[in-house]
Amino acid sequence: MGLYEDLLERIGDRERVTINETVLEQHSKGMAYHEPRKPDVVVFPRTAAEVSAVLSYANERRIPVTPFGAGTSLEGHIIPVQGGITLNLTMMNNIIDIRPDDFLAIVEPGVTRMQLNQALKKHGLFFPVDPGADATIGGMASTNASGTNSVKYGVMRDQVLGLEVVLADGKIVHTGGMAVKSSAGYDLTGLFVGSEGTLGVFTKIIVRLQGIPEATNAIKVSFPTLAEAAQAAASILKAGVSPGKIELVDEQTIQAVNQYKQTDYPAAPTLFIELSGSASSVKDGTELVKELCVAENAVSFEMEEDSVARAKLWEARHHAAFAIQAAYPGKVMLSTDVCVPISKMPAAIAETRKLVDEYGMTAAILGHVGDGNYHTILAFDPADKEEVKRVEEVNARIVRYALSHGGTCTGEHGIGIGKRQFLYEEHRDSVPFMKGIKQLFDPNGIMNPGKIFL
Amino acid sequence: MGLYEDLLERIGDRERVTINETVLEQHSKGMAYHEPRKPDVVVFPRTAAEVSAVLSYANERRIPVTPFGAGTSLEGHIIPVQGGITLNLTMMNNIIDIRPDDFLAIVEPGVTRMQLNQALKKHGLFFPVDPGADATIGGMASTNASGTNSVKYGVMRDQVLGLEVVLADGKIVHTGGMAVKSSAGYDLTGLFVGSEGTLGVFTKIIVRLQGIPEATNAIKVSFPTLAEAAQAAASILKAGVSPGKIELVDEQTIQAVNQYKQTDYPAAPTLFIELSGSASSVKDGTELVKELCVAENAVSFEMEEDSVARAKLWEARHHAAFAIQAAYPGKVMLSTDVCVPISKMPAAIAETRKLVDEYGMTAAILGHVGDGNYHTILAFDPADKEEVKRVEEVNARIVRYALSHGGTCTGEHGIGIGKRQFLYEEHRDSVPFMKGIKQLFDPNGIMNPGKIFL
Repeated sequence: MGLYEDLLERIGDRERVTINETVLEQHSKGMAYHEPRKPDVVVFPRTAAEVSAVLSYANERRIPVTPFGAGTSLEGHIIPVQGGITLNLTMMNNIIDIRPDDFLAIVEPGVTRMQLNQALKKHGLFFPVDPGADATIGGMASTNASGTNSVKYGVMRDQVLGLEVVLADGKIVHTGGMAVKSSAGYDLTGLFVGSEGTLGVFTKIIVRLQGIPEATNAIKVSFPTLAEAAQAAASILKAGVSPGKIELVDEQTIQAVNQYKQTDYPAAPTLFIELSGSASSVKDGTELVKELCVAENAVSFEMEEDSVARAKLWEARHHAAFAIQAAYPGKVMLSTDVCVPISKMPAAIAETRKLVDEYGMTAAILGHVGDGNYHTILAFDPADKEEVKRVEEVNARIVRYALSHGGTCTGEHGIGIGKRQFLYEEHRDSVPFMKGIKQLFDPNGIMNPGKIFL
Repeated sequence: MGLYEDLLERIGDRERVTINETVLEQHSKGMAYHEPRKPDVVVFPRTAAEVSAVLSYANERRIPVTPFGAGTSLEGHIIPVQGGITLNLTMMNNIIDIRPDDFLAIVEPGVTRMQLNQALKKHGLFFPVDPGADATIGGMASTNASGTNSVKYGVMRDQVLGLEVVLADGKIVHTGGMAVKSSAGYDLTGLFVGSEGTLGVFTKIIVRLQGIPEATNAIKVSFPTLAEAAQAAASILKAGVSPGKIELVDEQTIQAVNQYKQTDYPAAPTLFIELSGSASSVKDGTELVKELCVAENAVSFEMEEDSVARAKLWEARHHAAFAIQAAYPGKVMLSTDVCVPISKMPAAIAETRKLVDEYGMTAAILGHVGDGNYHTILAFDPADKEEVKRVEEVNARIVRYALSHGGTCTGEHGIGIGKRQFLYEEHRDSVPFMKGIKQLFDPNGIMNPGKIFL
């Protein structure tokens, strides 16, 4: 029998095992620039037992398996570079349990963050990780995603308390639990989080929840120079205001947004800040933020409390990535993702802007200034070899600048396909041990091959 | 040549390689009940190169090596159960770098938390993990320690950004870095944190720092019943007050303190709370806490802002463990360390009190109610086999109660010697993979043998 028939026999449902061209095509790429490759079959499991049946079959026959969630990966994690089986986990989208008094939820991997937050609202709770896209919790755990809220609430690894994982040979193991903390042996939960589908498939995820703050506002402040904006951000962080979000967008990025949306935002380095907490702490925090910004010569200061007005105020920030995309129809995007020590970020952004100018490129630069992570979004034509080469050069220079200043090649997108070389440059002496761990959990190398390691 | 001569040749300093009986004796035990065992030699390295020289020597000859910090372990981690070499790391106590603008410090493993905090004060920063004892940062990282502050700031694993580790064969590897977050490959940093000296010796630790809050207060509230105290704590957590500390002490424990210190604290279930942040948020938070406590029939409410008065108010909590110790001179202590899902803690504490009453024991019960972690401190005579058996029974029943309610056998003390059996019960299906990882990093099993695994 062929691969399709074998899998159909195991799943027993023609709707959930497919070789339909359109479906294969949909599973050939993520949201970024990497070369697409179709899987041979796509399976939509509904249970851990089905995932286990597929994996033990694939493991015996050395067939590659690639887990797939919402398809929003930016580093090619979900491209089955060696073909084989793609496991689409979106039908495993049950919220198994919400335990408001324990501040946790137990979810299947295909639950998306917006789906979870919708269900949490009535409990006055929310799940704080927001990478922008409506990704699945499974996918976010796989890449250790974070986003704008991480300065206050931490990254995915901080939220995941426990996992059910199906390993390459079909064995189902459990890590962590429902206790908020534990010192019981090696932290396998944290090891699986960020393993990008190379160690196993998550089938159950226990996540921490947060209380919805009493008050939230949004602040937008423009500065004469990038250095002053950055200095204001540093002052805010040091003052202990503990912002919910603090984002830096440079002048050229605002210009790109103005062109794209026909808006007239002041084309100046801009901080987008969110404060949340008790009403009085937000009020006091806002005053303090204003003072600190004025001290750095802020040229405009806007604040909104109403949720619609807040969303409007954040628009320029949210449109930045789309602006670049829209300005270059038909082109594909590369988003750099370096993270540097907090104090090094202003210089890193200035250096990056100089670099893309030098190469004559248009780029959006978006900075999570609270944790030193920033993105440079570059558009290019993958068929234009010369352009590809230049984009890769720029990317490599941005990464090496970050590494030479104590930073990392990826703050939140993961290694995937595109940063494998940089992983070696960053962690030369520990990569052999990462490979040893890979070998331990997946001796036949069937789990998402071609990712993380060269 | 013998072991001593070999090591002396490698270290070249008679002051730092010793077989002095008193020194060996000092390195034979931690602060808990486990049977002492002396090492054959104690070495005090000053550099990673010296640690590496000792380990590669020991690895070739299959000699056990046990790392040792402040000696405050509660689970026998530092007892060299198979003899061999103890590496006392307290001479590696340099604060290598404080980078206030990056909110991080780089320290050697022998730096203690008080030493670090002393140095940080002038920068308006502090290191938030406080396990009570003035432990070394290396030791705290080894056991993934936490303590009263973790409800607000997280545990050791959340603070450690990067490590320099000397592996069993003497190889020096680096993990993590100075970026606040990273998705670059498997999280080896988090794997080493909590590995209890079984995977390698930390020689450099990069830790996150926090700004000292503008205002801090201390609140002490008594309740008619344990259930009401627990319900008040739950309400406080859900109200989003975000306490810096929130501790629950039961009636019998306050009685023990009163006997020990000749104090007259109201013998009632008591919550000790600390709020910190901006002055206005502390003020508002205090009001809210008071309301929530009154709603649960609080019988007394005390609040202090001055640092001396705050310390005084916390005394009953701080003396609880000593009270038990003092009441039973010559006896040794066992401190349980289970952590249950937050909502399960009140019932777990009530159950534990019933249990120790049933066994006719005097015990202090101290709960980190914000994270579901509580300690039952039991005194016993290790020579009295009958008493040892009863204490072990009580401990086992407390652990199994926690495990059957989704909890963990250790919230912050680690597995060490005493909880190896419970690790298997808690993580039966993943312990084989923990062992695989141990094998990968330490194939000859020289690193702290007899700990974590049976």
